[in-house]
Amino acid sequence: MAAFDAVDIIAAKRDRAELSDAQIDWVVDAYTRGDVAEEQMSALLMAIFLNGLSRSELNRWTGAMIASGERLDYSGLARPTADKHSTGGVGDKITLVLTPLVASLGVAVPQLSGRGLGHTGGTLDKLEAIPGWRAELTNQQMSDQLAAVGAVICQAGVGLAPADRKLYALRDVTATVACVPLIASSIMSKKIAEGTGVLVLDVKCGSGAFMTELAQARELAETMVAIGTDHGVATRALLTDMSTPLGLTAGNALEVREAVEVLAGGGPADVVGLTIALAREMLDAAADRLEAVGLPGAGVMPGTPEASRWAGQLRQADPAAALAGGQAMDCWRRLIAAQGGDLTAGLAWSHETDDIVAEETGYLTSLDALKVGVAAWRLGAGRAQRQDAVQAGAGVVLHAKPGDPIRRGQAIMTLHGDDPDRFERAREAVAGAWTIGPTPPPAKPVVIGRIEA
Amino acid sequence: MAAFDAVDIIAAKRDRAELSDAQIDWVVDAYTRGDVAEEQMSALLMAIFLNGLSRSELNRWTGAMIASGERLDYSGLARPTADKHSTGGVGDKITLVLTPLVASLGVAVPQLSGRGLGHTGGTLDKLEAIPGWRAELTNQQMSDQLAAVGAVICQAGVGLAPADRKLYALRDVTATVACVPLIASSIMSKKIAEGTGVLVLDVKCGSGAFMTELAQARELAETMVAIGTDHGVATRALLTDMSTPLGLTAGNALEVREAVEVLAGGGPADVVGLTIALAREMLDAAADRLEAVGLPGAGVMPGTPEASRWAGQLRQADPAAALAGGQAMDCWRRLIAAQGGDLTAGLAWSHETDDIVAEETGYLTSLDALKVGVAAWRLGAGRAQRQDAVQAGAGVVLHAKPGDPIRRGQAIMTLHGDDPDRFERAREAVAGAWTIGPTPPPAKPVVIGRIEA
Repeated sequence: MAAFDAVDIIAAKRDRAELSDAQIDWVVDAYTRGDVAEEQMSALLMAIFLNGLSRSELNRWTGAMIASGERLDYSGLARPTADKHSTGGVGDKITLVLTPLVASLGVAVPQLSGRGLGHTGGTLDKLEAIPGWRAELTNQQMSDQLAAVGAVICQAGVGLAPADRKLYALRDVTATVACVPLIASSIMSKKIAEGTGVLVLDVKCGSGAFMTELAQARELAETMVAIGTDHGVATRALLTDMSTPLGLTAGNALEVREAVEVLAGGGPADVVGLTIALAREMLDAAADRLEAVGLPGAGVMPGTPEASRWAGQLRQADPAAALAGGQAMDCWRRLIAAQGGDLTAGLAWSHETDDIVAEETGYLTSLDALKVGVAAWRLGAGRAQRQDAVQAGAGVVLHAKPGDPIRRGQAIMTLHGDDPDRFERAREAVAGAWTIGPTPPPAKPVVIGRIEA
Repeated sequence: MAAFDAVDIIAAKRDRAELSDAQIDWVVDAYTRGDVAEEQMSALLMAIFLNGLSRSELNRWTGAMIASGERLDYSGLARPTADKHSTGGVGDKITLVLTPLVASLGVAVPQLSGRGLGHTGGTLDKLEAIPGWRAELTNQQMSDQLAAVGAVICQAGVGLAPADRKLYALRDVTATVACVPLIASSIMSKKIAEGTGVLVLDVKCGSGAFMTELAQARELAETMVAIGTDHGVATRALLTDMSTPLGLTAGNALEVREAVEVLAGGGPADVVGLTIALAREMLDAAADRLEAVGLPGAGVMPGTPEASRWAGQLRQADPAAALAGGQAMDCWRRLIAAQGGDLTAGLAWSHETDDIVAEETGYLTSLDALKVGVAAWRLGAGRAQRQDAVQAGAGVVLHAKPGDPIRRGQAIMTLHGDDPDRFERAREAVAGAWTIGPTPPPAKPVVIGRIEA
């Protein structure tokens, strides 16, 4: 690989020049190896933050991040693969339901997830509320489980996109986190390296999300769809509302219970609706991909009657029926058991609860996702520092959602926690979290927009 | 001092917010102490590079750099003080003449200088061509010599603006050098900390200077004059031409010889003219300052007849007469002797020389400063790395300046060096360095502009 001078590359981006492919490859690789210093990369990141990256620069940058580590390959699998990534929100337990649901309909889901930081929860934290469940799998274990169960939810190994880990830690201390190209390349490098054929993005927008403005969320979604497409992954995105929490729970064990309710054919309408919408995208994208590129692992060539027949089956697959009929639940049980989880052992409950009561009668007109998320975090469901432990039972249970009628004196939510000292600060967090009016607010759809390449 | 989070300060400048005085004080101090990491400061420097600093931010930033170390104080001295700073050029030996000249006219000159890097020479490197001369003095030695001789030229101690040393090293590797507020604060923090009452800036413009465009040079000069003024130092600037070398020599011992010629009342007209123009500014500014703030060390109050009389003497002081009459030379001898230099020991000559010959007859219409500077550097007069040694005798002697008539076959310049291997690359450097035309070019003044607060 040609050697460059980091100073020249920083100066080029500083002066709004287009970086060459070779410059991008070199600087990401040299940084990962430690040959470009942290202070040089942070200057480059700030120049990127302020001057941007073109689509071609961003694709190459993401590619260089992928190339910094291993790229998993499930092309030998006899089933299509699809994954979902959410940009994070409050009460977002969708992965827990969606992964076994889509797997039960014949599309394998290799879901690499993370832990939570701040007010948004992490999928691994939620599943770790199940006694015995293990987040760490080797690549071989992942691959075996994907073939046997059709689904895996585990922690990304250190071998995937190591450049991202270094870059993320640096961005965190240099005020270069909130930058669309850097966010998009961080997410997409890991998801592309993970080896999925299809990726559906759930880009959240609203007070409880990283992106609070729709225009920003749309830009991020379009950017990520472009990167995925350019790297050969069939990528789509839904823009979804995160102004109010998803479902009625925020907190690890509380959310697992709610996910199990949905898998049993019940659960809150918004969680069910968004899960089915995302499943639909994954199945349809997998069908399109089957027709376009075939499935080497099953000996299916593109454009053949076999590919069309299989694609047709995926398009007709019915997620709602799989929830109602118990196939998704069966797959959930196998998925959890395969990773050591004991669903018969019972989930944690907190020792203490505290009701938050309405002082007026009317209709709940809003319920702020961020404030509920911060309350759950303060009760112990989330962590302030990466090394903190989370409390499985802590969190918030909502008794009403926007549009529901409210009586004065009724509990709007219940705080759950083990530590009585935390309740005061959680109550402060939800002060002013809701509004009550004389008429119901207009219905607000969860899915706001959709982006396809 | 209030504690801040470095990330918030970086984010504020990134988002074009005005930093508060307390934020600036904290971040510069914490960086100097090592509590703000290099990668955080480099992100902030890039944000400053791209988003700028307001005049009030820049003053505070410079003040915080000054406050990172000691600030010398010559207010007890019985003479006014004035210093000159040049942004650096090729053949710029002005300090060697100007310092003893101004001192001989009754204004003490505390000149802290640096070494050269790249194609521009450093005053200390030049003076070190004199056997025995020492650049390192303690603050006490500086102060004593200033009282006894009226002039000192020495290396800035490590106690002055230590923030600048750290910041400069960081800027060098992060492509954040060429930024007016960062250049201005770097220069001015050291010059203000050095304790001078008057500062005259020689801001050079042209191929051999750091600033090649007049608009940039003017912006830098105006910025530095504003900082000095706001910190209580009477500051003025001359914008001067650096499209062609100053005088007829570039190289350490060669330039000392030329400086001695000027001190003897001779020497090239451009060196003499610029020296006198800068001396005039130093004397006049010192006079203005005497009337405005008096001179506590001599018991002179502002606005008194004594202050006016003294100021009048400074305004009538005649630099050309001091050169012609030998007073400047007397002071030069005392200055060099006080720092251990032996002017009777003889200066180094290089072992090898090589004439560069004109191939046409006509008038020299241009002679590029940068190319001559690079040739002198390659011959050994300058250094590529901070730790390199320089060769005292190496450099370039010019036999013509723009406007001079040239005969085909005449030597335009002579290269001097010890190492025959270096001549080839020096000849390459001066290839195309000059133009010859049928008529003399219009006369180009050395002083292009003047800036006063």
